[in-house]
Amino acid sequence: MLKSVTIGIDIGGTKTALGLIDELGNCLSDDTFPTCAQEDFNRFIANLSERIEKLVVRFSHACRLAGIGVAAPNANYFHGTIETPSNFKWGRVEIVKQLQKHFHVPVAITNDAKAAALGEMIYGEAKGMRDFMVVTLGTGLGSGIVVNGELLYGHDGHAGELGHTIIEPRGRQCGCGREGCLEMYVSSRGLCRTVFEFLSSRRDDSKFRQMSFSELTAKKVYEAAIAGDSLALDAFEYTGKILGCALANAAAYFSPQAIIIFGGLANAGDLLLSPTQKNFEANLLNVYRGKIKIVLSRTPSTPKGSAAVLGASVFIQKEFGKNRRQEI
Amino acid sequence: MLKSVTIGIDIGGTKTALGLIDELGNCLSDDTFPTCAQEDFNRFIANLSERIEKLVVRFSHACRLAGIGVAAPNANYFHGTIETPSNFKWGRVEIVKQLQKHFHVPVAITNDAKAAALGEMIYGEAKGMRDFMVVTLGTGLGSGIVVNGELLYGHDGHAGELGHTIIEPRGRQCGCGREGCLEMYVSSRGLCRTVFEFLSSRRDDSKFRQMSFSELTAKKVYEAAIAGDSLALDAFEYTGKILGCALANAAAYFSPQAIIIFGGLANAGDLLLSPTQKNFEANLLNVYRGKIKIVLSRTPSTPKGSAAVLGASVFIQKEFGKNRRQEI
Repeated sequence: MLKSVTIGIDIGGTKTALGLIDELGNCLSDDTFPTCAQEDFNRFIANLSERIEKLVVRFSHACRLAGIGVAAPNANYFHGTIETPSNFKWGRVEIVKQLQKHFHVPVAITNDAKAAALGEMIYGEAKGMRDFMVVTLGTGLGSGIVVNGELLYGHDGHAGELGHTIIEPRGRQCGCGREGCLEMYVSSRGLCRTVFEFLSSRRDDSKFRQMSFSELTAKKVYEAAIAGDSLALDAFEYTGKILGCALANAAAYFSPQAIIIFGGLANAGDLLLSPTQKNFEANLLNVYRGKIKIVLSRTPSTPKGSAAVLGASVFIQKEFGKNRRQEI
Repeated sequence: MLKSVTIGIDIGGTKTALGLIDELGNCLSDDTFPTCAQEDFNRFIANLSERIEKLVVRFSHACRLAGIGVAAPNANYFHGTIETPSNFKWGRVEIVKQLQKHFHVPVAITNDAKAAALGEMIYGEAKGMRDFMVVTLGTGLGSGIVVNGELLYGHDGHAGELGHTIIEPRGRQCGCGREGCLEMYVSSRGLCRTVFEFLSSRRDDSKFRQMSFSELTAKKVYEAAIAGDSLALDAFEYTGKILGCALANAAAYFSPQAIIIFGGLANAGDLLLSPTQKNFEANLLNVYRGKIKIVLSRTPSTPKGSAAVLGASVFIQKEFGKNRRQEI
């Protein structure tokens, strides 16, 4: 009998990753290519379809493709669309319909942070949990929230915009047109902004005094912190402080069992995690204290380095389950 | 055949209300009595049991008691307990166990705000909705959040502590031991504190300049506002501003279809609702604008004036449904 497999796809601002995943979560083969988000979407979908086909054909002697799960920024689960994410020139694209037409299997799309949460629930830090949050720290800040064992979508699919809660009235300008959003403080861009705020308000020396705003990256701040640059170290401390306070408020809404940190900035490890945990605990309401762990993600990556691919695969498998329940 | 009825109980800081409710939500009879939260719990439970019995006996020719639902502050759904609410001298009490022993029917307890949310879902403003929030404004601020048609409890029953999200770091001291909690600004106590903050920072005349902190009540602020006292009017405006901003952040977590305002302070009507709606809309992320309504509760009250009694009755009926599903 042919083995049932799914394709998980993780569309990022710069790179798209896909993998052929079996029902036990083994990645049989995977692939990555540049997203080219500034170019035509039709070119992207042709490229993606070709690469999916290659993976599937290679294993067609032993496997049957059961479905395709897609994780992308600004994904609309209910409409099957990607809706004009910032840094993408695609506008609103009906990616689910296009992949369905091509492959004649069930296709569904969800937000990248939501897919990460599902990956974490099945293979990562949230195994066996029914109430937890995943916070993804990359260029921006996303969140995937699981309540009663199910992803939280809200009435229109837009729940979980933790990055756009306002934590500082009249604070830093955000791309969303408002001011003081959490992701302007806690994200790789936020970290760089903090460095520049410190350069303006403090007197101590730092290698960043010789660097322009455009040159600065979170990676450079990380390397400077590791090398002992006090301004870089404090920037991480400040980022963790803001994140810890924000998560203490999130805990009062959800009372989760764990909060899992995922994505590029999470690679800073204890530099970010320690101040986050400390400020989280200090700002928690009594009933939650000592009960909620904040940990770094442990979802295994595909060989080519994407963890969200596994989440996207879990996502489409869960969708099968939902459809089966509806049929009964 | 005997009609199946439930008892709904709403335990408040000053008054306890109970009602005998049929399956269509009709209140066949109801009762209220002073809670006497400063006295012995055993006295309370004896009094409550006697009054339940009277209601049930009166209708025993036509009705069969199917269960008892209790709504109370600091209720723990999982343990069946009330856990040391402020202003109560009871400590931690096993109310569910005691009522079960007495009446030999299913008994369950939930937070008052959560019961209000269920009442709203079946009989009030949230009819047919699966994602909405109820915010109860009384002495404090509570919330009942419904996600995918189910109450949000979190992993330990403590979800929905919206009143204890910190909205002003180093802000007003809260009874929870921290500073800047939302309920210190938006609640009847919060409103009074705002009046005193304004008395200290402003120069305009007000009838409250002749009143002590202990004398001031939300009702007096309301009456002064209606009479045109500018300080009282601004206190409502400020309360609505803080609430609107806080709810805009809550919307980014949950993307609810509606937010319903319930409880004593909600009786101030447009005085509170207008500034809340205005500041909510102004602080919302783009994708939510114009989509989420903020309205006052419309759950019908029992003849003696409690709406939460109906919610408590819905709650125990939903518990039956859960048990039935588990049996299948």
